[in-house]
Amino acid sequence: MLNTSSPLEHLRQNFRPPLPLLLKNLLALDFFKEELISSKEQEEIRSYFPHTFGQPLLTAQTAKTRITRALRVGVVFSGGQAAGGHNVIAGLFDALHQLHKDGHLFGFLGGPSGIVEGKYRELTKEILEPYRNTGGFDLIGSGRTKIETDEQLESSRKVVGDLKLDGLVIIGGDDSNTNAAILAEYFLSKQCSTKVIGVPKTIDGDLKNTYVDISFGFDTATKVYAEMIGNIARDAASAKKYYHFIKLMGRTASHVTLECALATHPNLALISEECAAKKRTLAQVVQEIADLICKRAEIKKNYGVILVPEGLLEFLPDVKELMAALSQDGSAAAQKLSPGCQETFSQLPESIQKQLLLERDPHGNVQVSLIETELLLIQLVKKELKVRADKGLFKGKFAAQNHFFGYEGRAGFPSNFDANYCQALGFSAALLLSHGYSGYMAAVSNLSSSVERWGVTGVPLTHLMHMETRKGKKKPVVKKALVDLKGKAFMHFGKARERWALDDLYRFPGPIQFYGDATITESIPLSITL
Amino acid sequence: MLNTSSPLEHLRQNFRPPLPLLLKNLLALDFFKEELISSKEQEEIRSYFPHTFGQPLLTAQTAKTRITRALRVGVVFSGGQAAGGHNVIAGLFDALHQLHKDGHLFGFLGGPSGIVEGKYRELTKEILEPYRNTGGFDLIGSGRTKIETDEQLESSRKVVGDLKLDGLVIIGGDDSNTNAAILAEYFLSKQCSTKVIGVPKTIDGDLKNTYVDISFGFDTATKVYAEMIGNIARDAASAKKYYHFIKLMGRTASHVTLECALATHPNLALISEECAAKKRTLAQVVQEIADLICKRAEIKKNYGVILVPEGLLEFLPDVKELMAALSQDGSAAAQKLSPGCQETFSQLPESIQKQLLLERDPHGNVQVSLIETELLLIQLVKKELKVRADKGLFKGKFAAQNHFFGYEGRAGFPSNFDANYCQALGFSAALLLSHGYSGYMAAVSNLSSSVERWGVTGVPLTHLMHMETRKGKKKPVVKKALVDLKGKAFMHFGKARERWALDDLYRFPGPIQFYGDATITESIPLSITL
Repeated sequence: MLNTSSPLEHLRQNFRPPLPLLLKNLLALDFFKEELISSKEQEEIRSYFPHTFGQPLLTAQTAKTRITRALRVGVVFSGGQAAGGHNVIAGLFDALHQLHKDGHLFGFLGGPSGIVEGKYRELTKEILEPYRNTGGFDLIGSGRTKIETDEQLESSRKVVGDLKLDGLVIIGGDDSNTNAAILAEYFLSKQCSTKVIGVPKTIDGDLKNTYVDISFGFDTATKVYAEMIGNIARDAASAKKYYHFIKLMGRTASHVTLECALATHPNLALISEECAAKKRTLAQVVQEIADLICKRAEIKKNYGVILVPEGLLEFLPDVKELMAALSQDGSAAAQKLSPGCQETFSQLPESIQKQLLLERDPHGNVQVSLIETELLLIQLVKKELKVRADKGLFKGKFAAQNHFFGYEGRAGFPSNFDANYCQALGFSAALLLSHGYSGYMAAVSNLSSSVERWGVTGVPLTHLMHMETRKGKKKPVVKKALVDLKGKAFMHFGKARERWALDDLYRFPGPIQFYGDATITESIPLSITL
Repeated sequence: MLNTSSPLEHLRQNFRPPLPLLLKNLLALDFFKEELISSKEQEEIRSYFPHTFGQPLLTAQTAKTRITRALRVGVVFSGGQAAGGHNVIAGLFDALHQLHKDGHLFGFLGGPSGIVEGKYRELTKEILEPYRNTGGFDLIGSGRTKIETDEQLESSRKVVGDLKLDGLVIIGGDDSNTNAAILAEYFLSKQCSTKVIGVPKTIDGDLKNTYVDISFGFDTATKVYAEMIGNIARDAASAKKYYHFIKLMGRTASHVTLECALATHPNLALISEECAAKKRTLAQVVQEIADLICKRAEIKKNYGVILVPEGLLEFLPDVKELMAALSQDGSAAAQKLSPGCQETFSQLPESIQKQLLLERDPHGNVQVSLIETELLLIQLVKKELKVRADKGLFKGKFAAQNHFFGYEGRAGFPSNFDANYCQALGFSAALLLSHGYSGYMAAVSNLSSSVERWGVTGVPLTHLMHMETRKGKKKPVVKKALVDLKGKAFMHFGKARERWALDDLYRFPGPIQFYGDATITESIPLSITL
């Protein structure tokens, strides 16, 4: 009686995303080349990428119709799920077949390890149909293996060689695109003819730059979280009983939290990058929250909504120092800490102190990511409010609920924006491959215009890199973008938040809508429209 | 630049839910009366409700057009939020004005305490407009005060008398409807002319009976949870890395979990009522989960989705016994426990043992609701799998993520079903009042047909009651419905679940849709369509 396909899944499988006008005929396109000026820092990167460094920026433009041969292309998902991944693959498939009726597409299984181990399946129209416009990466799976060692690189070269691949498309975040650059360089250096293209994926929003407005998956994830936050805000304003501390996924950067704040107008949204810029300690963050709660208590509001970015603790200078000290000194270290670190440590609840002393990652480092930041803040705020209450400075009530939104936003049905964007990214990757480019990130420009007017670019991956210390060693990696405190999104937030703090101007975005009025179906991330 | 109203909120405010054909002209309706046969148990209730017991079942039917005077009606929200509450009020308002242009509606503020304390605001067309089809109870707030003592009852009588109310509509769950029955009886016994009508509200789905298919709010809440569960299932099937233990709100009964299971096809959904019927102990539940994980590991699946109803622990006989023993004996009780209870107690992780010994409610009872059941299960399953692995019986991996979905489902934008249903409930309440009935639950029948064919009934509140022991005293209360293990919904689940366990037949309902194809916009709870 109950179908396994839900009615929405059924409908979405038949949705055909609109294509940018430019992409209607891939055979009548060429790329305009533009030299990029590299900074001094980037020059350091040249030595690592002698074959792929210094390539021009590419912008697709109409040209005389050409004929191409059929391409054989492999595709892989790398890292965490992001909504729209299946549409990148469907777009790639459609584009390869628009270029030549005999195009072939192979999906590597379970992430990059599928390349190394030669595990793949050929993707046909029939296999792809039910995955169009659906969430998740379940068509071919994903994984977190990095292709780094000589053995892995060589094994990958052999696999793509045996498959006679013209191209390999790596759909991933900053690290996966770094890996794409490494593979592109390696293949070229070994006279392997397989070209490598990266596609910008991550819900975290930290893979963006001059040429990439936003990675795919960010829109859907933040809309799912904003739906939930809005619902909770409405509940809070109705029950007038709880402070809801909501932690949001998004790794280091606070893009997800900022976008959700713009979408829902919480009473407080902590932005890690701002805390770091202002050198705020954990105690100061707790004070800030307690101040808000006291101010609201004065106007008889003992409830509210507070957003906490997943990466917050790493940005607080005192916590950072403590973690470094603990990582250095080993497990019996609490006594040996500097007075400053001891003070920070002593603030922490006992259970977290224990966790920090006992649980280490394989490299012996303290695992800050295990700390449930939202619960830590609730405990510390409760303590601070008790102190204030004892002094007669807080006369309200404080009861809190904690939430963490993460996994539920990564594999939802892609919003129309992500569905359209991902299809265009698949086309963009195919176009770059058909022109024989390697070591590029496929990009779509002009995202804040209507789909018809979107453009297609290729950005040299090495141009997106900088040198970073990883596990004690300097390495060239694709740069992660943090929230720009001088950017329009943060500026807008900075101006509005004072009123949001006390006036309860909650905004209720509701669930993602796929059909109906364009105001609800075609919206794009607020951070890139401001 | 950013409006406080989201685009969806804007559109929803202008949505006008369709009305059942029967309700197009309220002045041309009367009620058909039907005697109800009361059971022996119910006869016991008569003594508590001499004025309101034994009233007939009412079914609205077309009649000659009549003229009524303008009614003055008060309305209040009681208990937790449920989507559609604002539409009950809007429906009530519209109906009162259809009955007579000079109808007046007053909203009591902050729940039943607003009645006792005479805190209210008059609700006008202008005030109501922005709240139509929105979630939450923020228009007038809600609260959990029970009107029980003589002072509270008398004070309420005075307030409704001073306001010259013809009617009082109490929107709430089982306990709030019990309270409505008490008020109705009290007012009648004191010759107060204010009639009292209850409206069935609760996301928990436990307020249903022969005449009420489902309470409002259940559809929206379960759809929000099912959206998230589906997203997580897609993520699990893509990453193939985690078991997601998802606890779902819903108080004692497992209706929410059952509905979400039907909507998403998880690998396992625990149904408390079944555990109780089969007298399963906590250790047996842990074994059941561990068995599933081992079976899946054999087919290389080290991931999955497991639904856990909020009320599970109260239904497990050993846990129940332990809680009773601990509540009786006070805080130093662990030593004095019976051997059986000691065994149960010793299974629990230390942190939970501590919690049980130290944290009591104001009556000295152990607070089972504080136990994070999903985390408890993860810990116990981990331990059990370790034992099995040591014996070579489990060769898979086990990593788990925990989730709790509750608040995010209570105040979302009401689904079209809840929006339509709630408007009809408001009309139903107004119609009952216009005919002078008191001590009734307003109900809408035939909910699995199209809106046009819905019927309107009035169910005597006392007929929905049974005797229950509360705080050691037998009391007449509206009966809470548990999951019927012989009902169609559970039977369907029982047949399908074996395949869901291993085959990953996850169903992805996606976000609630308000516009577009009727298959996605007009769906109603699966539990009542089966």
